[in-house]
Amino acid sequence: MAGSSFGTIFKITTWGESHGKALGVVVDGCPAGLELCEEDIQIYLDRRKPGTSSITTQRKEDDCVEILSGVFEGKTTGTPISMMVRNTSQLSKDYGNIATCYRPGHADYTFDQKYGFRDYRGGGRSSGRETIGRVAAGAIAAKLLKQMGITVQAYTRSIGHVQANLDAFDTEAILQTTTAMPDRKADEEAVAFLQKARSNSDSVGGCMECRVTGLPAGIGDPVFEKLDANLAKAVMSIGAVKAVEIGDGCAVSQRVGSENNDAFRMADGQVVKATNHAGGILGGISDGDTLLVRAHVKPTPSIYQTQATVNQSGEEIELAIQGRHDPIIVPRAVVVLECMTAITILDAMMVNMSAKMENLVNFYK
Amino acid sequence: MAGSSFGTIFKITTWGESHGKALGVVVDGCPAGLELCEEDIQIYLDRRKPGTSSITTQRKEDDCVEILSGVFEGKTTGTPISMMVRNTSQLSKDYGNIATCYRPGHADYTFDQKYGFRDYRGGGRSSGRETIGRVAAGAIAAKLLKQMGITVQAYTRSIGHVQANLDAFDTEAILQTTTAMPDRKADEEAVAFLQKARSNSDSVGGCMECRVTGLPAGIGDPVFEKLDANLAKAVMSIGAVKAVEIGDGCAVSQRVGSENNDAFRMADGQVVKATNHAGGILGGISDGDTLLVRAHVKPTPSIYQTQATVNQSGEEIELAIQGRHDPIIVPRAVVVLECMTAITILDAMMVNMSAKMENLVNFYK
Amino acid sequence: MAGSSFGTIFKITTWGESHGKALGVVVDGCPAGLELCEEDIQIYLDRRKPGTSSITTQRKEDDCVEILSGVFEGKTTGTPISMMVRNTSQLSKDYGNIATCYRPGHADYTFDQKYGFRDYRGGGRSSGRETIGRVAAGAIAAKLLKQMGITVQAYTRSIGHVQANLDAFDTEAILQTTTAMPDRKADEEAVAFLQKARSNSDSVGGCMECRVTGLPAGIGDPVFEKLDANLAKAVMSIGAVKAVEIGDGCAVSQRVGSENNDAFRMADGQVVKATNHAGGILGGISDGDTLLVRAHVKPTPSIYQTQATVNQSGEEIELAIQGRHDPIIVPRAVVVLECMTAITILDAMMVNMSAKMENLVNFYK
Amino acid sequence: MAGSSFGTIFKITTWGESHGKALGVVVDGCPAGLELCEEDIQIYLDRRKPGTSSITTQRKEDDCVEILSGVFEGKTTGTPISMMVRNTSQLSKDYGNIATCYRPGHADYTFDQKYGFRDYRGGGRSSGRETIGRVAAGAIAAKLLKQMGITVQAYTRSIGHVQANLDAFDTEAILQTTTAMPDRKADEEAVAFLQKARSNSDSVGGCMECRVTGLPAGIGDPVFEKLDANLAKAVMSIGAVKAVEIGDGCAVSQRVGSENNDAFRMADGQVVKATNHAGGILGGISDGDTLLVRAHVKPTPSIYQTQATVNQSGEEIELAIQGRHDPIIVPRAVVVLECMTAITILDAMMVNMSAKMENLVNFYK
Repeated sequence: MAGSSFGTIFKITTWGESHGKALGVVVDGCPAGLELCEEDIQIYLDRRKPGTSSITTQRKEDDCVEILSGVFEGKTTGTPISMMVRNTSQLSKDYGNIATCYRPGHADYTFDQKYGFRDYRGGGRSSGRETIGRVAAGAIAAKLLKQMGITVQAYTRSIGHVQANLDAFDTEAILQTTTAMPDRKADEEAVAFLQKARSNSDSVGGCMECRVTGLPAGIGDPVFEKLDANLAKAVMSIGAVKAVEIGDGCAVSQRVGSENNDAFRMADGQVVKATNHAGGILGGISDGDTLLVRAHVKPTPSIYQTQATVNQSGEEIELAIQGRHDPIIVPRAVVVLECMTAITILDAMMVNMSAKMENLVNFYK
Repeated sequence: MAGSSFGTIFKITTWGESHGKALGVVVDGCPAGLELCEEDIQIYLDRRKPGTSSITTQRKEDDCVEILSGVFEGKTTGTPISMMVRNTSQLSKDYGNIATCYRPGHADYTFDQKYGFRDYRGGGRSSGRETIGRVAAGAIAAKLLKQMGITVQAYTRSIGHVQANLDAFDTEAILQTTTAMPDRKADEEAVAFLQKARSNSDSVGGCMECRVTGLPAGIGDPVFEKLDANLAKAVMSIGAVKAVEIGDGCAVSQRVGSENNDAFRMADGQVVKATNHAGGILGGISDGDTLLVRAHVKPTPSIYQTQATVNQSGEEIELAIQGRHDPIIVPRAVVVLECMTAITILDAMMVNMSAKMENLVNFYK
Repeated sequence: MAGSSFGTIFKITTWGESHGKALGVVVDGCPAGLELCEEDIQIYLDRRKPGTSSITTQRKEDDCVEILSGVFEGKTTGTPISMMVRNTSQLSKDYGNIATCYRPGHADYTFDQKYGFRDYRGGGRSSGRETIGRVAAGAIAAKLLKQMGITVQAYTRSIGHVQANLDAFDTEAILQTTTAMPDRKADEEAVAFLQKARSNSDSVGGCMECRVTGLPAGIGDPVFEKLDANLAKAVMSIGAVKAVEIGDGCAVSQRVGSENNDAFRMADGQVVKATNHAGGILGGISDGDTLLVRAHVKPTPSIYQTQATVNQSGEEIELAIQGRHDPIIVPRAVVVLECMTAITILDAMMVNMSAKMENLVNFYK
Repeated sequence: MAGSSFGTIFKITTWGESHGKALGVVVDGCPAGLELCEEDIQIYLDRRKPGTSSITTQRKEDDCVEILSGVFEGKTTGTPISMMVRNTSQLSKDYGNIATCYRPGHADYTFDQKYGFRDYRGGGRSSGRETIGRVAAGAIAAKLLKQMGITVQAYTRSIGHVQANLDAFDTEAILQTTTAMPDRKADEEAVAFLQKARSNSDSVGGCMECRVTGLPAGIGDPVFEKLDANLAKAVMSIGAVKAVEIGDGCAVSQRVGSENNDAFRMADGQVVKATNHAGGILGGISDGDTLLVRAHVKPTPSIYQTQATVNQSGEEIELAIQGRHDPIIVPRAVVVLECMTAITILDAMMVNMSAKMENLVNFYK
């Protein structure tokens, strides 16, 4: 099916496999008049680049973006923005055993079951490189939101048992640390933990979080197009994510109502909430408070240990996966979470513009 | 926006407010030839009925469904199935303070911000009664899945700190216990806990889970239409749900890869997984194993304690909510989770039919 | 498939068969704050009523609409507006030969081929009564457009060879004449022609047209969501329509460019077109001029003459269709054309609100 | 808005401007296992190439397609097929007066009204070059349909007053004649007519038609997703098309029922129609007969005569359009009609697979 599109008005369509010719995205429905250049996109793509630290893979991926359409004289024209990244590190290597066997934790088996065969080179369409299109599109959404005073900021919350201390939130550390944690001390601990995991030929899971500030109240729609429902889809669609939480998330199931309800108060003539257990969403609609979404990411399924599995012929085998792999997905996935959140929110804001009769009438006056 | 529709081929559109004339759903895209009568639907609706135990609200809601179209001589015709439940317990009571003030934890404030005003009677469109349409539609999806050997079963996993023991899974208990737990002993404990909460004028959160068995491998699409992504949207769109987990969910963020990967094995000539941390989904596509989705539900926001809030005039006030309210949402929401899961899976199965060239060609031969 | 929904933001979902319990529509995405009552809808439904003249069927159809949701204290709330019309004239008559044979020009055969069987009572879902939902939804769209100064007006242009003289356009005649022509003299001729056709046990085709005035320039989107493309779909989806024209339509294929191009001129400081061969749409986007769409409607397929056909057993038979039938579809379909046009335009206007960066930014300032 | 996507399961997304870096399309939802190479696409693209005859523009456009994803070892994988054509003939010429004035019959004015400005180079997104994406996608759809025994064939029916004689239908002439007419004699007349128009510095309109044979009965859905409704949208969305007809089209409005109804008959144990006024569609669903769709195309708006128009400053001016232009659009648009028809039909066939309960159940047995 056409599973590669996301969004109603601000609609993205991604394409490409990890070892094909290129990967890319078509962003349709971007308003006309946004200043945009390749550097705006590249900054975001560089955040998901590997090879930049001791704990990410040593593969070299250049991932230079080219804008092919939809921008004229430095501004978006309102027509589709096509962006492409050529695959430059396609090695003519032997994919031998990966081609015919099913790696545990990967989508090899399910792709074969669905399509009858698969592009087995490096994960094909289910590779983490698929997120290049998401990030390129999200860079545009984030830039546009910024011009409306809305900030979308994702970061690593925990790696294994190592939790970032969010009370001493260090925004600059997110882009500077190896782990994308907003806490330099926890980052150090986490790096040590990761190195130990790597020396054990193992990988590690983690948790990432995204905060949106400046979002007006009233965004999102009742019932199925709730803002949190669309965020849940957007975030769960990122490979390796196994849980999505909004606000206090799972913790609410062990709460009583008197502690979980956020009291409304007045501050500077504005309605505010005394607390924010809700994570900025009530009844699926933004309440003007900080929006908070969290994702739990499984350990990289590719590990250096020998694993039990089966091959396409139905034989039980021992598999040793070759190649270079990150011991953790989270630090490179943080920008993907940020981008999917930005895309979801921007689309909901566009869709919301005709919610009130008076807004519609005034718009066309 | 048009937020009241869900699904691509099997598409449902719900409508109605808690104290309007009626609530209902249009199910479009149901295959022709399914035997269907009102009793098939009523059985599911009765599971979300209040007034059936000491811990649910004492309000009387008859909720009798009427099938208005799409069924002829006892079978679905392939055209839209319109179903309606008349609201019979609309009291002409005074909604006075609720009309003008914002209940903590409810969507009163966000609806006002979005639409300029709201139907304040009993929550209007954001009431739990909105789920009547979901359940009526889900009853059809579940009946259809059953004929393909697929079982969808939801239950209460925990209420506050009280956890059901899933090792001694008692399927019959789900429909027989007050709490919809598959564990009669935990049910007793949970009831006691709920009665204590009620005596404290408080409410309680909980966790519910859904298992799907018999689902073939290959269902779901890569990237944005992943089966888990659509389940996350479907489940997060249920009011009061604040977190969605697939398989081991949040726990994976504290795991290492060697323990989280599910080894593939052969059993009776079939590929199986030795464990099921993945919850039956790999790369967004079903793997043939039991599908497992879990939702965390916040405590009922309506409590009998006086709460601090503000009114529409921007005054800080003390609010005492009148009326009868469940101290917990979960036992009545279990069938909603089951129905949203059934709808999501059925739709994905329909969409999947043209994934392989040979299937398409053979179909039209 | 889910074929019963139309629209992106202003989305309608219709349901119901001609001889089922009821027919209706769910209108989702209507802005909050529009004053609306059942009488607003009933006026439009009455225009498609039969039994009001010598040339329409003598069947009695009350078609009283009931608004079931989405309106509170006289105003739309932004949530789905569910509307229903009960079928009151379901006769327990014998559908005998219609049930098992294929009426020429009807959808009996194609429904059987698609679904395996059909609701054979009076055409079921493919009956002209299906348009009740379209008209109820269109009444809302038209009312909303009117408040923005946009008028949508459809009328009969020709019946058989009898053409209305549009140079002496008589707006009031549209609602007063038997044929919905804006020309009382042509109406008389057409009535005589229809009575002759009826006395021949035959039926007649015709052409209807819709004009939209007050529509601002800039509505519609490039490529696939062109305003004329969506109008073509909306209008061709009306049963019995076999051709759709925009502006000069078919005539352009016999023109040269120098006569077909509309010169741009200035008038009162506004850009205008000296002529309007384009029918108000250039490149799929409205140009501020009068929008003109035209539909050609086939003769009613149910005629009193005996016709050659086959039955479900594959036998060639002679069929005499019983019951009462209009000798022409057009006069009652005019309001359907008007409503589908209104729905299409309103939806395009809502979708257009975020086309410019500055509009989006200013909206949320 | 996101106006650049078309289709439900077989979904295409086109992008690119006439003088940007490239144009292309992403085809999502193509079944896995179709043999596909660039040559399959190039053959179709070459049919819309200019510069191949005396009556088409002398511009040189290479239009070499590159498949960037979705094909592995010569077969489609089920994931998005991204295809791109680089623009090689971008001249750094002076677009001076076109940049600031509104060409009659073009979308310059409406794009400016919608987006605030436009990519004025050669029509930008509203250029005929936009159809490259449609044709590349349609080539895939047509190849797939062919493997199911379904042939889609478009041709020129008339140019100005010159009609092709369809009784002596010459299939090979379509690809061999200058005008794409299935009649060599009419082609000669039409060429003479076009040369005369060119010598008058004028352009000419025409009519094109598409026939689909081998299509099974039962394709298309009731109400809004009727096969003819989607064809009308698909075809009207092609630039310069001003009317769409199905079967006998406009002619039906002057018919009586007894001549317009197609009698059902039996032939070789199959239900057939004695005539085909309906054009292969009844009630929006294919009836197994030849499907016939026709489009009327306006004369090329770019002509060599000086035309009256206005510029962006609101001044009335005289405009002489430079450059090379076809005196007629139709011969190069024929393949676009063929491709849009193929895409629409294939998508409807995929969507139809779950229409019957027994088909769904058997599929997953």
